[in-house]
Amino acid sequence: MSSTGITAVPGADLDRLVRRIRDVLPENAVITDPQRRRTYECDGLASYRVVPALVVLPENTEQVQHVVAACAEQQVPFVARGSGTGLSGGALPHSEGVLIVTSKMRRILEVDVANQRAVVEPGVINLDVTGAAAPHGYYFAPDPSSQQVCSVGGNVAENSGGAHCLKYGFTTHHILGLQVVTPDGELVELGGTAREAPGYDLLGAFIGSEGTLGVVTRITVRLLRKPEVVQTLLAGFASTDDAGAAVSAIISAGVTPAAIEMMDALAIEAAEQAVHCGYPDGAGAVLVVELDGPAAEVEHTFAEVRRHCDEHGAFEIRVAADDHERAMIWKGRKSAFAAVGRISPDYIVQDGVIPRTALPEVLGRIARLSADSGVRVANVFHAGDGNLHPLVLFDDAERGAAERAEAVSGAILDLCIEHGGSITGEHGVGTDKVKYMGRMFTDDDLDTMQLVRCAFDPAGICNPGKVFPTPRLCGEVPGPRRGVHPLTEAGLADQF
Amino acid sequence: MSSTGITAVPGADLDRLVRRIRDVLPENAVITDPQRRRTYECDGLASYRVVPALVVLPENTEQVQHVVAACAEQQVPFVARGSGTGLSGGALPHSEGVLIVTSKMRRILEVDVANQRAVVEPGVINLDVTGAAAPHGYYFAPDPSSQQVCSVGGNVAENSGGAHCLKYGFTTHHILGLQVVTPDGELVELGGTAREAPGYDLLGAFIGSEGTLGVVTRITVRLLRKPEVVQTLLAGFASTDDAGAAVSAIISAGVTPAAIEMMDALAIEAAEQAVHCGYPDGAGAVLVVELDGPAAEVEHTFAEVRRHCDEHGAFEIRVAADDHERAMIWKGRKSAFAAVGRISPDYIVQDGVIPRTALPEVLGRIARLSADSGVRVANVFHAGDGNLHPLVLFDDAERGAAERAEAVSGAILDLCIEHGGSITGEHGVGTDKVKYMGRMFTDDDLDTMQLVRCAFDPAGICNPGKVFPTPRLCGEVPGPRRGVHPLTEAGLADQF
Repeated sequence: MSSTGITAVPGADLDRLVRRIRDVLPENAVITDPQRRRTYECDGLASYRVVPALVVLPENTEQVQHVVAACAEQQVPFVARGSGTGLSGGALPHSEGVLIVTSKMRRILEVDVANQRAVVEPGVINLDVTGAAAPHGYYFAPDPSSQQVCSVGGNVAENSGGAHCLKYGFTTHHILGLQVVTPDGELVELGGTAREAPGYDLLGAFIGSEGTLGVVTRITVRLLRKPEVVQTLLAGFASTDDAGAAVSAIISAGVTPAAIEMMDALAIEAAEQAVHCGYPDGAGAVLVVELDGPAAEVEHTFAEVRRHCDEHGAFEIRVAADDHERAMIWKGRKSAFAAVGRISPDYIVQDGVIPRTALPEVLGRIARLSADSGVRVANVFHAGDGNLHPLVLFDDAERGAAERAEAVSGAILDLCIEHGGSITGEHGVGTDKVKYMGRMFTDDDLDTMQLVRCAFDPAGICNPGKVFPTPRLCGEVPGPRRGVHPLTEAGLADQF
Repeated sequence: MSSTGITAVPGADLDRLVRRIRDVLPENAVITDPQRRRTYECDGLASYRVVPALVVLPENTEQVQHVVAACAEQQVPFVARGSGTGLSGGALPHSEGVLIVTSKMRRILEVDVANQRAVVEPGVINLDVTGAAAPHGYYFAPDPSSQQVCSVGGNVAENSGGAHCLKYGFTTHHILGLQVVTPDGELVELGGTAREAPGYDLLGAFIGSEGTLGVVTRITVRLLRKPEVVQTLLAGFASTDDAGAAVSAIISAGVTPAAIEMMDALAIEAAEQAVHCGYPDGAGAVLVVELDGPAAEVEHTFAEVRRHCDEHGAFEIRVAADDHERAMIWKGRKSAFAAVGRISPDYIVQDGVIPRTALPEVLGRIARLSADSGVRVANVFHAGDGNLHPLVLFDDAERGAAERAEAVSGAILDLCIEHGGSITGEHGVGTDKVKYMGRMFTDDDLDTMQLVRCAFDPAGICNPGKVFPTPRLCGEVPGPRRGVHPLTEAGLADQF
């Protein structure tokens, strides 16, 4: 056993790896001490824990490139990590690998207001981008609820969403270019400053690849002009069906609010206990609807939204008169995940997507699943784009409860797939949902993705075990693809 | 020589290929007659002409899959073609290959208004999608000027833009899912009906891949609600500098018009001669600005646009009072390319992109290039997003004129690259700009794209010779990527 604790990669001389890394990285950027390594054992999904063999904290692109090249030489696995707030175990370390933590790469390199963009390092905190742009009247749109602590590099890896992605889209819609270290240590540019570039859009493929195609070292983000006005409305309904009908009416009318969030009775109860948000008494569901844009437009469409809520049975409508009241309305929604801890010792945060029109049907099926299993489910979701966050409640002290909750949680994902939706809206596959990928995609679909992964990372050292089920050596991807081109395959084999 | 005229692929038994294709495709869907094949010798860029060895017109996905699988078996190159309106030679046939024409695949399979999407076959004409959605109050946003004749499959291949992509983005922003036949004949789904899907965003990589990653057989498009109102303004300025300053002021104010188009004096002169559009007399530049959206918003922002034009020296501003007047304003702009034929026997339509803020500098440099070389250049462009379409005029009857025009045209692309822009905004690389790729990308960048191409198409039979310079066998992509992973490469080699 080597002194660093890295032991299991056959043939890799890992003391040499540490020495090579220390050639370029400063002493305090390389962590071998077991106690200090343990602090990195999980991300926001604490149910998986693995202590990495080595932790490095590079300070710049060159250091990242050096670490990755050193790993590639000896085929040592590596995992990149930003702030570690992910909810799918995407940054779960490898026990025999290197964890590359980007939190020392926090420089905002450029704010180019005239061209509405900024260039940042991957460890920069999401909200700090907006902080740098705000004096010029601009902001960075992606707003995951962790935006005060999560890193832009992590947002890129997971293609993070947020409450406002109904109108503004996901992280992928706000990234113009990336500087990336590929798994063999090459430095490449994807996308760039031009609005449209020729060649393959690998920028899009990289964003949301959950750390499996390389490590991002520099990010050019799009900045948006701050809207002239923001209007926020809270509406109480008797049921999620009524609230869902109001959502459909709003969207069908051609209105695109910045956000439409829904909470059901159990989620409201939890939020009320936790933060006393004062949501309408006795509501079976609430909607939070936010509009932003030019004052004239917002005034007009806000009246329309209000009318649709009225017509679909809202028994109470409250409009935020100022920023403080707006903050209070959002407080209930944003606290919901944590608040569920008040009404249940343990819970699973699920993340699935359905077409918006399937909302009533799927919510009904979730209620039946809950009734049949005796497992309580609180629903909080981005209603406008059909992104559900069911909170599946259980008490781990109770025998078999965790398994029952897990079963209900999985059944909800099956419902999403059955309705033409997706197993994840914004939390990613990571470690947690690997087992569901085969339910959503055919083998041919998954093999096509594997082709790309293997093209970038033939040795399988870049965040291995994440996203794709049944990890195989890259040569093992099956199918006619590797059988019908004898001339070319011979050509490939020749060069090895 | 075989009776089909396919001769040069070594070892391929091409009579057998034709027989195999005829096993599944009807008689009239397989064209071997040389005269009939000649009608497919070029796309919209007529300066390259190649007669394909075989033309097939499949009627459905299964037939496409059959043709591609048959080509894959014998490593015969194939090229997909929609309506053939592309301007970069992307659908230029291969003299020893099969041209797969999708024009018989014209079914609109579904219009799902509630979920704002439609499913169409690749040969469907762009404007017919809007035609099917219009009765429900929806439309398909991408609007290349060829939209009355171009196919949606071609739009996907080229990631087509249009006058309104300033506000609405490119084709890639309006495609939800694709059914694709990969170069080895597998059928896969990319993207889908869910707003967000896990795994790699290969949908984005496929869109704009110019036919090099497979053949699209079914397309799920996003439908947008028709805007409540549209307002169109025509403003005359003394110079492109003044007009450019107005554009910058409009965008900086946070207004995003649906379109901002600019034409310079020479382009105006051509349009005037061709269609008598009645643009302001003596203008050194005109702007066409269109706003759309809710009435209240448009009214408000239109006043702002007008003010910015006034403040930057517009000497005449005209507002379209109705659809007829709007059509007249657009007629001048849309006729510009063809109209240039009135003032010059020959011309090159260039397509480059620059950051909007570089407009005055780059226009000045183009003017100097023109003055120094004696080659006239008319400028027509999507000013809002910096997509230039310089028209480089020449007379092919004049000795050396074509070469001089080509030199000026290439120098304009160099200017675009120098200013952080792109060698193509919406026409694609195709055959025409292969030679410029190396000026825009580093070898490492291009090799990274080649990795993906080779993963999909190791035999190099899918639209070969397009997009990427110096075609190599896939095994020849150089660099450390193929040298540093001995264990895995051994693993790969083992299986051959």
